[in-house]
Amino acid sequence: MLTTICFDADDTLWHNERFFRLTEARFVELLCDHADPDHLAERLLDAERRNIEHYGYGVKGFTLSMIETALQVTENRVPGAVIAEIVSAGQEMLAHPIELLPGAEQAVTALSEDFQILLITKGDLIHQERKLAQSGLGERFDGVEIVSEKHAAVYRDIFSGRSIAPEAAVMVGNSLKSDVNPAIEAGGWGVHVPFELAWALEHAEAPRAHPRFREIGELSALPALVEEICRNI
Amino acid sequence: MLTTICFDADDTLWHNERFFRLTEARFVELLCDHADPDHLAERLLDAERRNIEHYGYGVKGFTLSMIETALQVTENRVPGAVIAEIVSAGQEMLAHPIELLPGAEQAVTALSEDFQILLITKGDLIHQERKLAQSGLGERFDGVEIVSEKHAAVYRDIFSGRSIAPEAAVMVGNSLKSDVNPAIEAGGWGVHVPFELAWALEHAEAPRAHPRFREIGELSALPALVEEICRNI
Repeated sequence: MLTTICFDADDTLWHNERFFRLTEARFVELLCDHADPDHLAERLLDAERRNIEHYGYGVKGFTLSMIETALQVTENRVPGAVIAEIVSAGQEMLAHPIELLPGAEQAVTALSEDFQILLITKGDLIHQERKLAQSGLGERFDGVEIVSEKHAAVYRDIFSGRSIAPEAAVMVGNSLKSDVNPAIEAGGWGVHVPFELAWALEHAEAPRAHPRFREIGELSALPALVEEICRNI
Repeated sequence: MLTTICFDADDTLWHNERFFRLTEARFVELLCDHADPDHLAERLLDAERRNIEHYGYGVKGFTLSMIETALQVTENRVPGAVIAEIVSAGQEMLAHPIELLPGAEQAVTALSEDFQILLITKGDLIHQERKLAQSGLGERFDGVEIVSEKHAAVYRDIFSGRSIAPEAAVMVGNSLKSDVNPAIEAGGWGVHVPFELAWALEHAEAPRAHPRFREIGELSALPALVEEICRNI
């Protein structure tokens, strides 16, 4: 039997990547008078990849990577006003209101009646907490785990720390790399809800043949899928 | 009976504020040719205070506050090379090796034989995890809680989430505001281990008359204090 449904947050319950893309576009525009615009996005991605080990995920590290890239591509000649704009862009991302994705509220509410519901997300601690509070969904969750990385070992620790049998847990998310694949590797079910935008550093292959892998188009299909899994195990 | 000893991390188990002070001194030096040095540290503290709600605690937010202050005090005229130095200073803080405080390893090791040992800290998720891993003390802890803020309600949640009776728990730390006072308010014991340097935003009064308040000069005195508390309750 399934006992626990775990949800990813960013781009599963609410919009996130959209705001990174908009800010990246603003970054490119801010710098286009001061550097060759052709490879700016690539240079930014290189900085993010280089820094993720120390900065972790989230807006603060992204803002620092934008500043670092702006300095590098201009050989430190970027005007202070442009750096100030980048700092503001990061602060606006942190202050931006939550926009729930279609079906998110209904799926979480419906499933919370019969299952233990967890939120498992990575990113900046205080920002993820603020978004959850603002989403209005906070009360529906029986537990919240904000982690620095979503490997199989992290899912195993979360399951064992809460005395959840892995095969009784479903992880639902938009990222194959961080949500679906490691949860399956930890012994759980993985439900992929693809999102139109995906960050380059989140790419992974879908384990299409795996018996505990499922894919749905939207969260509104989740309660029926969970019911179907329960009927067949 | 006591069952659980909880430790703060920064400036309780290992040095932290020292690196912030050194970086702040470097910041003032970097800017002294470009701005009035007199109130630089104050302006930086103002920025930190203003930003803490969105950035939370930790090095990334501190770095962004330094950049913001450098731009403000120079009216955006700060050279890019100075901003690049600030970014590097932040990265050096994140990469800096751990320096354990006197008695920390011995106290944690001794108490871990008879008690459940928890680490309760705020700050950047990934940075605190890296410091704990590097400290060599990771295996001694039965649980790690990295939280965005250390209010009484947070301690209550941690205690109840782990089925710990508050009066059976001791919180040990250098901050009256974040460690000692809120743990006592949550029903636990608070042991203050003052550290020579304290961040201005962490100031609070000691509850000297409270029956569950204690103060020691160094962590080496903790096992004997815990024994004494156990004898008298």
